[in-house]
Amino acid sequence: MNDDREPIRDVAHLGRVELLTPEPERSLWYFHDLLGMEAVHREGASVYLRGYGDYAASTLKLTEAAKPGVACVHWRAVSPQALERRAAAIAATGLGIGWSNGDFGLGPAYRFRDPDGHVMEIYYEESRYEAPAPLRSTLKNLPQKFTGRGAAVRRLDHLALLAADVPTNRAFAEETLGFQLREQVRYDNGAVEIGSWLSPTTVHHQVAYVVDARGGHGRLHHLSMWVDDKSDVLRAADVLRENGIFIEAGPAKHNNSQGFYLYSYEPGGNRVEVYSGSFLVFAPNWQPVVWNEAERGTGVYWGGALPESFIEYATPDIERPAERRAVPVVDPR
Amino acid sequence: MNDDREPIRDVAHLGRVELLTPEPERSLWYFHDLLGMEAVHREGASVYLRGYGDYAASTLKLTEAAKPGVACVHWRAVSPQALERRAAAIAATGLGIGWSNGDFGLGPAYRFRDPDGHVMEIYYEESRYEAPAPLRSTLKNLPQKFTGRGAAVRRLDHLALLAADVPTNRAFAEETLGFQLREQVRYDNGAVEIGSWLSPTTVHHQVAYVVDARGGHGRLHHLSMWVDDKSDVLRAADVLRENGIFIEAGPAKHNNSQGFYLYSYEPGGNRVEVYSGSFLVFAPNWQPVVWNEAERGTGVYWGGALPESFIEYATPDIERPAERRAVPVVDPR
Amino acid sequence: MNDDREPIRDVAHLGRVELLTPEPERSLWYFHDLLGMEAVHREGASVYLRGYGDYAASTLKLTEAAKPGVACVHWRAVSPQALERRAAAIAATGLGIGWSNGDFGLGPAYRFRDPDGHVMEIYYEESRYEAPAPLRSTLKNLPQKFTGRGAAVRRLDHLALLAADVPTNRAFAEETLGFQLREQVRYDNGAVEIGSWLSPTTVHHQVAYVVDARGGHGRLHHLSMWVDDKSDVLRAADVLRENGIFIEAGPAKHNNSQGFYLYSYEPGGNRVEVYSGSFLVFAPNWQPVVWNEAERGTGVYWGGALPESFIEYATPDIERPAERRAVPVVDPR
Amino acid sequence: MNDDREPIRDVAHLGRVELLTPEPERSLWYFHDLLGMEAVHREGASVYLRGYGDYAASTLKLTEAAKPGVACVHWRAVSPQALERRAAAIAATGLGIGWSNGDFGLGPAYRFRDPDGHVMEIYYEESRYEAPAPLRSTLKNLPQKFTGRGAAVRRLDHLALLAADVPTNRAFAEETLGFQLREQVRYDNGAVEIGSWLSPTTVHHQVAYVVDARGGHGRLHHLSMWVDDKSDVLRAADVLRENGIFIEAGPAKHNNSQGFYLYSYEPGGNRVEVYSGSFLVFAPNWQPVVWNEAERGTGVYWGGALPESFIEYATPDIERPAERRAVPVVDPR
Repeated sequence: MNDDREPIRDVAHLGRVELLTPEPERSLWYFHDLLGMEAVHREGASVYLRGYGDYAASTLKLTEAAKPGVACVHWRAVSPQALERRAAAIAATGLGIGWSNGDFGLGPAYRFRDPDGHVMEIYYEESRYEAPAPLRSTLKNLPQKFTGRGAAVRRLDHLALLAADVPTNRAFAEETLGFQLREQVRYDNGAVEIGSWLSPTTVHHQVAYVVDARGGHGRLHHLSMWVDDKSDVLRAADVLRENGIFIEAGPAKHNNSQGFYLYSYEPGGNRVEVYSGSFLVFAPNWQPVVWNEAERGTGVYWGGALPESFIEYATPDIERPAERRAVPVVDPR
Repeated sequence: MNDDREPIRDVAHLGRVELLTPEPERSLWYFHDLLGMEAVHREGASVYLRGYGDYAASTLKLTEAAKPGVACVHWRAVSPQALERRAAAIAATGLGIGWSNGDFGLGPAYRFRDPDGHVMEIYYEESRYEAPAPLRSTLKNLPQKFTGRGAAVRRLDHLALLAADVPTNRAFAEETLGFQLREQVRYDNGAVEIGSWLSPTTVHHQVAYVVDARGGHGRLHHLSMWVDDKSDVLRAADVLRENGIFIEAGPAKHNNSQGFYLYSYEPGGNRVEVYSGSFLVFAPNWQPVVWNEAERGTGVYWGGALPESFIEYATPDIERPAERRAVPVVDPR
Repeated sequence: MNDDREPIRDVAHLGRVELLTPEPERSLWYFHDLLGMEAVHREGASVYLRGYGDYAASTLKLTEAAKPGVACVHWRAVSPQALERRAAAIAATGLGIGWSNGDFGLGPAYRFRDPDGHVMEIYYEESRYEAPAPLRSTLKNLPQKFTGRGAAVRRLDHLALLAADVPTNRAFAEETLGFQLREQVRYDNGAVEIGSWLSPTTVHHQVAYVVDARGGHGRLHHLSMWVDDKSDVLRAADVLRENGIFIEAGPAKHNNSQGFYLYSYEPGGNRVEVYSGSFLVFAPNWQPVVWNEAERGTGVYWGGALPESFIEYATPDIERPAERRAVPVVDPR
Repeated sequence: MNDDREPIRDVAHLGRVELLTPEPERSLWYFHDLLGMEAVHREGASVYLRGYGDYAASTLKLTEAAKPGVACVHWRAVSPQALERRAAAIAATGLGIGWSNGDFGLGPAYRFRDPDGHVMEIYYEESRYEAPAPLRSTLKNLPQKFTGRGAAVRRLDHLALLAADVPTNRAFAEETLGFQLREQVRYDNGAVEIGSWLSPTTVHHQVAYVVDARGGHGRLHHLSMWVDDKSDVLRAADVLRENGIFIEAGPAKHNNSQGFYLYSYEPGGNRVEVYSGSFLVFAPNWQPVVWNEAERGTGVYWGGALPESFIEYATPDIERPAERRAVPVVDPR
């Protein structure tokens, strides 16, 4: 912000992500048995899940579809007024779709697309989770019992989206949604914006936009679930490996975000991260950290590199057009 | 908020705490050598310190004084306008002291007292830390090298204050400062408010007000520094114990806040916590979790109890008046 | 060893413990669901269990009985010849019971009592565990899949026995069984041997003899199961607490043994420890570490104390005779 | 053992390793400042170091030399008689060099070469470490204060040696030294023994012999220092990276040994591992786990691969002869 306007802070946090899967039962097995989430509701072709520490009824919606990918990204507003303001601002950009009555557990929502085409919603009203007796915790401030099943992820943390044009989507997230830009990767002396990490809250990033190496639109790089300690990420790797899940990368530490990551593919094909570490951003006037080619390196802090698939693969999967093979690519976190 | 006003969100976070110590050199040894903080500035009777992950130049000011305690609690506003609004609101309560030119690294600040008498300031401008060459990190997004010295605390997290009258101070923090109430301990069917935990940010609490069992004013229960993993807290206990520091309680897990705590006394007498775990609060309409006598129990989740000193001792230390010996007491976190 | 004889090293390790429980189904739920062990065999009133890292078919036998306690402690010899030598040496003490054909998974065993009356066996032949397909690990050197269920204990570590007369039992373990004495607690200028910790292997101790404050015989203080990291012990505490299990002490760190402990009571009443940390002893001429009253303190390294029950309760539970109320007591690890 | 002889168990453990370094001051900085070891003695061109948990006076000897590598591997015998027996057995193989008066802190030692030419010694007498006052621990059973400096490695764990002919060296370690074979990598339907991991104690391996891809002799692959928890290995990676040390691989988990590894090069050029996890082997009749090409894969359990340098580089470094470029290679752990 170069002027004296106050920052927009109308979005509270990432509220829910709807994933598409062509393998609904096996995807459910992955999220329920291996990541340890609870299934709280079924409706149509969808199952609604939650981490044991999520305060909302559901933060992950799994919907059967022909191809994997992200169907909708839901953001919670800080107040009814904030919801109205953001809906108006989005509508003014021409990206609005319109009001819906709200998905399971959610109140009225304003539906829209980001410039790249990812469908999103913003809502305010949300049902708090009320655990049934067998899932009640002995901790009054924990919405649900810690079952310890599988990786036992605590809560939804963030997601990374691919976009054909990063600057436009980043600017939309900053200016229209009011997110704070936390980090960027810029190549060619800053001329090419490869990726941007943004957040509406103190969590380092709740959305990343990274250039789609294949020139697609509306694609998902990964969804990320939080565990409290790095040791929980190591444990998750054992759980996934013992259950035949392909681990694409990690556990290891990114340099940008300082995230301690573990990437695997859920059986429907979507990349899912089990995540810890990173850092909270408290500064109201945070200066984005910008990494050039040399500073960025492989994106892995301790050494080594991310595999080629980390750059090339996203959901839904598409062919890489021959003419885009020279586009600079980067791993999105 | 029972009405339709939007919540006040003018304070960004706890910015700095000034501690008093009658043992300045030994207190510095504790924070520098054992907690692993850096000393970045000296001025008069004060030394300014920082955790390796604090983005600001300094988050802890140690000042020589006859008795230990907290001299000032500094809160950062989210914008210049927010600073003006909070200053006006505080002034309207009659608790204002006036504007100062700002302490080391800080811009103009509005000084005031909370109802119990703790001196506080609110400011907006703040110098970001620029590490000298030997302290530059290999991580561009880390303001300072991780030295790994001692407990290597990452950043300031919160503090707990005692107050003769909790409800009045809690209401001031909610209504005038705009903090969100996260948890409470209420006894006697809710009639007696023993403690309240509040925060201006997603961190579970950045200030707690707990009843002063001795009827004092302006006293400090503890200051808390963050480490990323629970294993870091265990390691800190070894570091403190090997260096002859008295550990009052922990490492263990509180039920309220879910904090993983380790309490020791720095040589000046102030209680200091090395802290991890807990949980972030994202809900804009968070419903405070209220614990009664039975639910609260000893305040320790896994079992056991906090020692008597945890209730009785605070800085500066005072005698317990005979007539207050029947007042309900609680351990403040 | 003050002479030039070579140390006896005929026992390889603690092989199996048979626990008695008046609540067999609930005890099984504790060990299977909460500690994450597998049940591999049922025979008569017994269920045989194992940790995922135990190489043997079973390391824990749960047998229904009127009262809890330890029924048998099985030690594995290093060779057939070593078994013969130990059987002969034990027989020579008059404590032998005789040869048995061996329990499930074990070859011929020589049965005996320690001087306090605990029944023990020594055997050499043992079936290695061959996991059925669903429990096969993706690690060829892991005998069984890491399921991650509950606390997911890895293997049997040690047990602590009470004895009316510690020196006699300790001397039997040293001289007749050939265990190395690792640590002792001695009060009254060394005159009163309160407890001794011994091991036939590099594991710090595999058996402890601690004075029975109630003058009983053949009683069990606790059985201990290993997890690899201290973070696993913390996680186990959450699992136990969420499932309504009483946690008597910990997670915390003992001074003697340096063990990182978590003590709970399984539903049958036996005290069970989830354990990590401690240290390996490699020295062939290890000098026992002897703690006096002051050095020993509460037995807790970081501070605090073990509860009274830790001294008073063992299985089977008995009344404390009035005349023994002045006997020095110590917490056994 | 296919016959009925009892296993030889005359060696207690790996006692000391002497490393050569052309950069003695910087190597000392690495081991003292970054790994957190103490320097206890200087003699000639050597400095003697120790981990805080090593019971012996010194477990690492750093000696200035033109090239890096391993100068001597010291094994401790279990008794004076065991020392005599091993010396006689080694002498009978023709690999003996003769008796020495013993290095700093060690009694008389019998010096020899393994078949590949690595110099070794076996000794029995050893000085226990007596910490000077500033390094005395508050734990009576800890030989030295836990300083928490740098990675704070606890103790020497193992080393990996390259050999032109693995089977001969492995057989020498098994039959003449009496080590137990724990794991092997065998290619070509078992015909080619790529590497073998052996130990005289419960620690999974204290020496590995891996084929020297360059046909050299007497070379060192790596030296390994133990830390208690996997979280300590992660922390070590941050410490090394912040201090400009090249991390070759890890933190990650091997499949064979289950070791949680972190490999870096100390400034003298030797590869050093900070290590945790793995598992203890208690079985007196342990059946070696043998991995073929497919089972072995990259040697990394969770995914990914070790870098080419991990196969190619050892100390002292030599050229790879053209004629050996087709030799199967494997990463040695």
